[in-house]
Amino acid sequence: MTDRERARQYLEDYAAGQIYRSARMTIDKDQIIAFAGQFDPQPYHLDEEAAHKSVFGGLAASGWHTAALSMRLLVDSEFRPAHGILGVGVDELRWLRPVRPGDSLYVETEVLEVRPSKSEADRGLIRVRTTTFNQSGEQVQMYVGNLLVSRRPAAG
Amino acid sequence: MTDRERARQYLEDYAAGQIYRSARMTIDKDQIIAFAGQFDPQPYHLDEEAAHKSVFGGLAASGWHTAALSMRLLVDSEFRPAHGILGVGVDELRWLRPVRPGDSLYVETEVLEVRPSKSEADRGLIRVRTTTFNQSGEQVQMYVGNLLVSRRPAAG
Repeated sequence: MTDRERARQYLEDYAAGQIYRSARMTIDKDQIIAFAGQFDPQPYHLDEEAAHKSVFGGLAASGWHTAALSMRLLVDSEFRPAHGILGVGVDELRWLRPVRPGDSLYVETEVLEVRPSKSEADRGLIRVRTTTFNQSGEQVQMYVGNLLVSRRPAAG
Repeated sequence: MTDRERARQYLEDYAAGQIYRSARMTIDKDQIIAFAGQFDPQPYHLDEEAAHKSVFGGLAASGWHTAALSMRLLVDSEFRPAHGILGVGVDELRWLRPVRPGDSLYVETEVLEVRPSKSEADRGLIRVRTTTFNQSGEQVQMYVGNLLVSRRPAAG
């Protein structure tokens, strides 16, 4: 059993108020432009000059890039549901500030609610708020997610 | 003035009930695995064998990949706010069905509400529901987004 397996969490391990914090990851200009070229080809995500004239006032990452990077940070963190981070959906996703080239991001995930399933004995839902911060401690993104989590199997 | 510029839309051009439909884009296995490797490295997005044993029952795209692809489809569609598709946030994002290798996706965006800003004379918000469908016409993702849209400049 690896350390990672040992650390996996079941529904019973979660409680409202728990906070999981990720490591940091820096996003650079080339990454911002590459993601935008593939998924969100709008001038303020692709071109510095156009971005300066836009509402962003400078090159900014696509919000979906910030969301995807936040997922990566979460997957690599100590938040480790036993069968993976299985989002059934998100309530409220807010892009609060532009993400700029050179920003160093991390996420904090707070458990808001833990609910065993009424119909399925082996699982439940947890509700989490995942906030993405930059190197100045400013919130750049926030969402509330609903995740499917397995209950701990009965001892055999 | 290009056709694309000519087609740009201002707040005054939107009305509840309008529907914009995108072209289709096919997602393949290599794309699913590449995105997951970068942003959502969990076994059911990376490895077919592991995916078969998971709740997905087979390789499935990361939900954030579906969201990013849906953005690309929307950007390339006839839905063209004059200053870009500027999301301030999303209310409700639901992943309704797995997206599989070979799926051909398109989006439909319905305008739900148009609200001029009370404090800023040159802009407003529109609320849209963007639904992503697969080649069988099944909904794979749905979100309700709030977008900042410019008002049409007064004739000079």
